[in-house]
Amino acid sequence: MRNVDGRELKQASYAQLKSIAEELREEIFRTVSVCGGHLSSNLGTVELTMALHRVFDFPRDKIVFDVGHQCYSHKLLSGRAEAFHTLRREGGISGFPKREESEYDCYGTGHAGTAISAALGIAKARDLLGEDYEVIALVGDGSFQNGLIYEALGSIKELKTPILIVLNDNGLSISPTHGGMHDALERMKEGSSEDIRLIERFGVTYTGPVNGNSFEELIPALETAKNTLKEGKCVLLHAVTRKGLGYPFTEMRPSETHGVSPAPVKSEYATAIGEELCRLAERDSRIAVVTAAMTDSLGLRPFFERFPTRAFDVGICEEHASVLAAGLAAAGMRPFYAVYSTFLQRSFDEIVHDVCLQKLPVTFLVDRGGLTGEDGETHQGVFDFSYLSPIPNLAVATPKNIAELRKMVEKSLDWGVPLAIRYPRAGNEGCADEVEFGKFEVLHSTMSDIIMLAAGERCLAIAERVLGMAKRRGMDFTLVNARFVKPLDGEFLANCPAKHVITLEDNVLAGGFGDAVARFLRGSGKEVRAFGYSDVFIPHGPADSLRRKYGLSEEEIFACVEEIYARG
Amino acid sequence: MRNVDGRELKQASYAQLKSIAEELREEIFRTVSVCGGHLSSNLGTVELTMALHRVFDFPRDKIVFDVGHQCYSHKLLSGRAEAFHTLRREGGISGFPKREESEYDCYGTGHAGTAISAALGIAKARDLLGEDYEVIALVGDGSFQNGLIYEALGSIKELKTPILIVLNDNGLSISPTHGGMHDALERMKEGSSEDIRLIERFGVTYTGPVNGNSFEELIPALETAKNTLKEGKCVLLHAVTRKGLGYPFTEMRPSETHGVSPAPVKSEYATAIGEELCRLAERDSRIAVVTAAMTDSLGLRPFFERFPTRAFDVGICEEHASVLAAGLAAAGMRPFYAVYSTFLQRSFDEIVHDVCLQKLPVTFLVDRGGLTGEDGETHQGVFDFSYLSPIPNLAVATPKNIAELRKMVEKSLDWGVPLAIRYPRAGNEGCADEVEFGKFEVLHSTMSDIIMLAAGERCLAIAERVLGMAKRRGMDFTLVNARFVKPLDGEFLANCPAKHVITLEDNVLAGGFGDAVARFLRGSGKEVRAFGYSDVFIPHGPADSLRRKYGLSEEEIFACVEEIYARG
Repeated sequence: MRNVDGRELKQASYAQLKSIAEELREEIFRTVSVCGGHLSSNLGTVELTMALHRVFDFPRDKIVFDVGHQCYSHKLLSGRAEAFHTLRREGGISGFPKREESEYDCYGTGHAGTAISAALGIAKARDLLGEDYEVIALVGDGSFQNGLIYEALGSIKELKTPILIVLNDNGLSISPTHGGMHDALERMKEGSSEDIRLIERFGVTYTGPVNGNSFEELIPALETAKNTLKEGKCVLLHAVTRKGLGYPFTEMRPSETHGVSPAPVKSEYATAIGEELCRLAERDSRIAVVTAAMTDSLGLRPFFERFPTRAFDVGICEEHASVLAAGLAAAGMRPFYAVYSTFLQRSFDEIVHDVCLQKLPVTFLVDRGGLTGEDGETHQGVFDFSYLSPIPNLAVATPKNIAELRKMVEKSLDWGVPLAIRYPRAGNEGCADEVEFGKFEVLHSTMSDIIMLAAGERCLAIAERVLGMAKRRGMDFTLVNARFVKPLDGEFLANCPAKHVITLEDNVLAGGFGDAVARFLRGSGKEVRAFGYSDVFIPHGPADSLRRKYGLSEEEIFACVEEIYARG
Repeated sequence: MRNVDGRELKQASYAQLKSIAEELREEIFRTVSVCGGHLSSNLGTVELTMALHRVFDFPRDKIVFDVGHQCYSHKLLSGRAEAFHTLRREGGISGFPKREESEYDCYGTGHAGTAISAALGIAKARDLLGEDYEVIALVGDGSFQNGLIYEALGSIKELKTPILIVLNDNGLSISPTHGGMHDALERMKEGSSEDIRLIERFGVTYTGPVNGNSFEELIPALETAKNTLKEGKCVLLHAVTRKGLGYPFTEMRPSETHGVSPAPVKSEYATAIGEELCRLAERDSRIAVVTAAMTDSLGLRPFFERFPTRAFDVGICEEHASVLAAGLAAAGMRPFYAVYSTFLQRSFDEIVHDVCLQKLPVTFLVDRGGLTGEDGETHQGVFDFSYLSPIPNLAVATPKNIAELRKMVEKSLDWGVPLAIRYPRAGNEGCADEVEFGKFEVLHSTMSDIIMLAAGERCLAIAERVLGMAKRRGMDFTLVNARFVKPLDGEFLANCPAKHVITLEDNVLAGGFGDAVARFLRGSGKEVRAFGYSDVFIPHGPADSLRRKYGLSEEEIFACVEEIYARG
């Protein structure tokens, strides 16, 4: 679509604003249909973003988008309309705010709960450096469950710097929002002055609620808020929006249309997780499931429906989820905490301190492990092997296919240790033999002096292609399903006759599987060559293209095999 | 002292209880004077713990201590009185609750904010498994600033399981508590019904405030609370205690007597941090300091006094501290966030997502890096190299002495990148040359085929002792101050003629410095031998004894040198 900017919005009539809103909505819908992306969250915030661009002066004023998956209108209104058709494509517009992409993106996000802290920091820097601009944090009600938001709210009185917090209340995280604060927000919407004073205890002036899809309500409210900021006060504007507004399909299914994929995916690991947990829970009453606002995308819906008393969605609270699971395990349950790899980072300390130090039998089901692709830097699951492997008492497994994931989930009940099972979003069902704790599986055995250890389905697929290339040229190597990144199969490695060991992992090289294998084999005389991702944040693009570019290319791995052969 | 148990407390008169309280206080004071430990927090909670042991039935009922540094009375009342003189000594009683130590310790802690989540998990498991006992979370008001507490409070209404939250309100974290929630707690003490309804919004029944040092007030309040639990409701009992009660010295200086060392420490790195930051801030108005309730122990008091507008103590909110620093940096400031290594774990995701992804010039001053000793498993700073090194854009430096720390702090302003400077509590001032980014320093150069890369002051001291042992036997090696764990000094490593490389690090081996050096040198034909800690949680004891036992022994390192020489 054409570029519309803040100046045009400032001069537009309400009727013109509504017409521009329709243009934005159509552009978002059309682009997401082709490129994938976040649909319902962006459709719901069109008017709110336009009103902010009308009342404030970006990029002079600064806006921080919590999570950032609602920034499409902002991008369309800040000189990126013509490039918007490249959304989430390699080298194109990112699906999240990104400092290096535009001066209008003053702060990058992707995970929940950071916006108020970041806005306070920016505002405080403004004060200290003697500058003069306004700072806005746009935060969804889902993030109001997240602990970081409370840490930030708790420091407002101390920091004494005015910011505008726009609470975008659509009643949903990705799953519906609930819990103590949600109830309070609901009562605020009904005008409960006591609940309003609750939030004002933190040192903010409450305004609202306003209809966040109505320019008539939003614009005067934002102008009033702007004046209150000038008095040196923090303002919280409570804007009630309708997630998915504009299309019957998205309005009726805001959760299902939160994230949209342009093409159907293969079998989802998540579906198997749901099936397997239900099957096991039928006969084992100790099994419980914990999630942080991701019931559907993690495949847990069937479990929540069949075993509601043992299913816990704690909202966007990854830390609390880990400790709750630890508590359940400490008192005799067998909890499974399903979470995306990138969000599990938020509870690193709790994995160490609560689960592993106490050797509690919590199983982390780490979905979206490895490159995730189009969501970009903030969502790649390429650090988990590295931050999980140094934790004592923790086992880290990664299945070769969905069938093996099922076996691992079942066997985890016997193993009874802290365990992370890490898998990508999609893969093949396949079939699998019994999985033994800490044991590799040889998939193709040869007399060659080369052995390839591949961790997880994606790497095994790469390894098999390399094996095909090698065989066509008369070369060969032993191929191993490295089911356990930790503990390594020490017996296998110690007795393995091959002199050259090649490792493949869908993870950064630093601190990953290859490092662990090399550490184990140090002094053995064996040569280790590790393939994985280089030490950079990997931007958005198709996962398959990115993995080649950042360290996992069949050609390079094959060249390594060839070179070893050439040396004799 | 003699063993006193819950049965004795149940039969005691109030006068007898007071006399037992005096015994406990004396035992705690005497033991901490000799063994070191947490003094004022334990003196303040004697009556509260005794009252809990009188009203509830441990270990049948379960108690989770938030942070856990207030558990001494509990240990004295649960069969551990006779062993209490071994507090914090190797093989002796831990300074924190520990499941493997006693069945009375149902859940281990050491970091802040986990107790309500864990108690909810335990209580929910109780319900699901059809058991019948009470679950108590004892939480200090300092932890009520921590985000994890809000995540847990927010889920109480959903989880629908009764627990008793005892809020131990002494107005202090380690530094005085402040901020939005603190103000609300203050008003609750004054009986403000509106603030009480604030906390009740989360689904708890508020009781109090009571004098938490008075049996006359505590015991009836706990009995009432117990009855409310039986009705299936969550209760929050607000107990106001006096930190350090019983001794004029500790009552007047509760912060300084929070943690007590039995012997004076050497020069503290923290002191130099305070001096250096003040010196630099004098001429550079961009410098700001952030801390999470640790102003004094991190040496920041002088900065807070001289530059109060640029000094931010956000309470026990390690995550918020990181994002606030990122926000400050995004808008032009140069923030230094000082924190203990073990607590920095809590903001792993924010280091990745907010600071490093955006390449913001935040300097993390990581104190208490490496083994800390007597505080045990939960406080050892032995994971930081491993969880920091895989993060793109982050530099990780470790100085050879305090003088070099000063240089690094100053130079960080020029470097302008995300940086972690990691150092132990105590060391020598020494002297230092200019520090160049990513460059090692050769301290002792020889023609030997062996080079030793030692990261940080403690490892350099070990290396020097090994060098002395070697020289006395006619052997020698090149000794390098590996100032940067990341980026490695690639030029140096690539051109280093020595064939045998030995690395020393005060960190676990998995994902640490040795792994990084080995990865860099892979394929070079050089042999790497890495010394650091093995893959276990290291319990409490003297740091020097522990490091020998868990992987950094002069004898073993010397044996490695000798063996290389023997091979010729």
